Amino acid sequence: MRIGIDLMGGDTPPTHLFEGVYSAAAELEPSHTLVLYATPNVIGKIAPRCQKNSRSAQIECVPCPDVIEMEEEPVASVKRKPQASLVVGLEALANRTIDGFVSCGNTGALVAAAVLHLNKFPKVLRPALVATLPSEKGPVVVIDVGGSTTSKARHLIQFALLGSVYQQAIYQVQRPRVGLLNIGVESKKGREEIQAAYHQLEALSHQENRIIFAGNVEGRDIFKGDVDVIVTDGFTGNVLLKTAEGTAAFVFDVLKANRPSDPTTATLGKQLCDEQQCGALLCGVDRLVMKVHGNATPQTLHRALLKAAACIQSDCISQMASLYTR
Amino acid sequence: MRIGIDLMGGDTPPTHLFEGVYSAAAELEPSHTLVLYATPNVIGKIAPRCQKNSRSAQIECVPCPDVIEMEEEPVASVKRKPQASLVVGLEALANRTIDGFVSCGNTGALVAAAVLHLNKFPKVLRPALVATLPSEKGPVVVIDVGGSTTSKARHLIQFALLGSVYQQAIYQVQRPRVGLLNIGVESKKGREEIQAAYHQLEALSHQENRIIFAGNVEGRDIFKGDVDVIVTDGFTGNVLLKTAEGTAAFVFDVLKANRPSDPTTATLGKQLCDEQQCGALLCGVDRLVMKVHGNATPQTLHRALLKAAACIQSDCISQMASLYTR
Repeated sequence: MRIGIDLMGGDTPPTHLFEGVYSAAAELEPSHTLVLYATPNVIGKIAPRCQKNSRSAQIECVPCPDVIEMEEEPVASVKRKPQASLVVGLEALANRTIDGFVSCGNTGALVAAAVLHLNKFPKVLRPALVATLPSEKGPVVVIDVGGSTTSKARHLIQFALLGSVYQQAIYQVQRPRVGLLNIGVESKKGREEIQAAYHQLEALSHQENRIIFAGNVEGRDIFKGDVDVIVTDGFTGNVLLKTAEGTAAFVFDVLKANRPSDPTTATLGKQLCDEQQCGALLCGVDRLVMKVHGNATPQTLHRALLKAAACIQSDCISQMASLYTR
Repeated sequence: MRIGIDLMGGDTPPTHLFEGVYSAAAELEPSHTLVLYATPNVIGKIAPRCQKNSRSAQIECVPCPDVIEMEEEPVASVKRKPQASLVVGLEALANRTIDGFVSCGNTGALVAAAVLHLNKFPKVLRPALVATLPSEKGPVVVIDVGGSTTSKARHLIQFALLGSVYQQAIYQVQRPRVGLLNIGVESKKGREEIQAAYHQLEALSHQENRIIFAGNVEGRDIFKGDVDVIVTDGFTGNVLLKTAEGTAAFVFDVLKANRPSDPTTATLGKQLCDEQQCGALLCGVDRLVMKVHGNATPQTLHRALLKAAACIQSDCISQMASLYTR
């Protein structure tokens, strides 16, 4: 198994991010390889620690002259910089030189490059990023969390289907219940496209067995776990995800300040944050692409790499594709 | 001082909500009056407990034949039901029969009725709901949290101004810093209208002293308190608010399950939730309108009524109006 990693274009210095690669390699088998895409300058600095060894996964480096920065316009930058680490890595994924690709860089550019170089599942209009949150009744997936910034009803319907097959393939939930994120539970609440999606999902739910629609859900219901999939546009999903993260961190900070030496608080905080921070999968393309926060720590990247390895091992993308086209 | 309360149209039974009115009355002065708008049936049930007394605020009842339900279309329902409790209360507010109006009902209808019956601050295109969240450095206000579901750049600019005068009038923050909610800190991130608002806010910030623009902020930064005002459209703001609420509740549930008898956890949980649940003020109209969650408990309504009384006492709406038009 070969996992590609774009070390460039995030907010965290590449040489610092590398620590996460190094520690993940130690937990992966020696037969696996982590392939790093970075500028020659960065590679020069980390190369001494990438030497072949028999106890951990191997680390290879692919020098790339260009970098797509956070502030660049996604589609234009992908077209203008074919030698950027993100684009070179995505091409390697398309050519099957690597089996998965992990990036902390520009989300829009990652999605644009994926759309350009990979095959989408049949009839999928646009791929979406899916993230997992904990709940009282098990993992809840939120789709889209940033693949695109606006969505029409037809996109939301596909996100519902993609989220359902994700729950089936990754968490073995046989009949995932789908909720539509809205500002009230009534069918007439919210924006026009959401009202339209509500009616289409309701109709689909009656017509065939592919979607089990549980109606609208609000932000405060996410953690109750009454639905397994939460459907929303990428802008709102991204805000939701980061707000949940920020709130949890704030609560734990307040608690820690009140009892600095309490191990239970620290452990619980870690658990909740771990689940949230561990990379979002791009759903709807035929190869494994994972997005990690732009401000990822080495620990976050470490966990994302182990998750990517597990996804490749279980062949979850093929499973999702076959469930989707069934 | 006379505060109107719409007991109808929320998810909580009106007779149950009344408990919050009753307990708030006990904390307000006998010279104050709480005016309830409800159906004759509801009033029949609560009337025995509304009798005049010398120790707490007085309670008056105004029987209204109609109710606007949660699922009704806002503008149409306000026009079709002039005798609904929400509309009758708003008219009383416009006529100065009451000094403030609190509702747990249909948000859209409340805003529509306010626009119909009240005067807006000069040049305000549409009013917005503003809610307060706690942060590491003091209260942060989020505007809009549900006044409307979509916003163009020109609306977001006005929300920035309204949020700034709210911080000045309510929390005495002299030079409030404004952040624009987005999915990345770079100016080119997010939807078109947000990118446009970014550039206009930046220009305004340089031109005059009315706005101090601190750039984009992400969901995870809210609780850091680096900005005092967070500007967003009403749909996203509503999701943000409810997600923060749901996350905090979830974290405290997990903690409570791990240490059922810990008083610190319970107290902190209560503090955080109190701040969040205590009603959103409608900014940009010349009278005090407060929206409380549709699923409000009597305790929430109790706190909202005390907050409304404090706002009327300090004449914050006039202060906001004069700051806005300065």
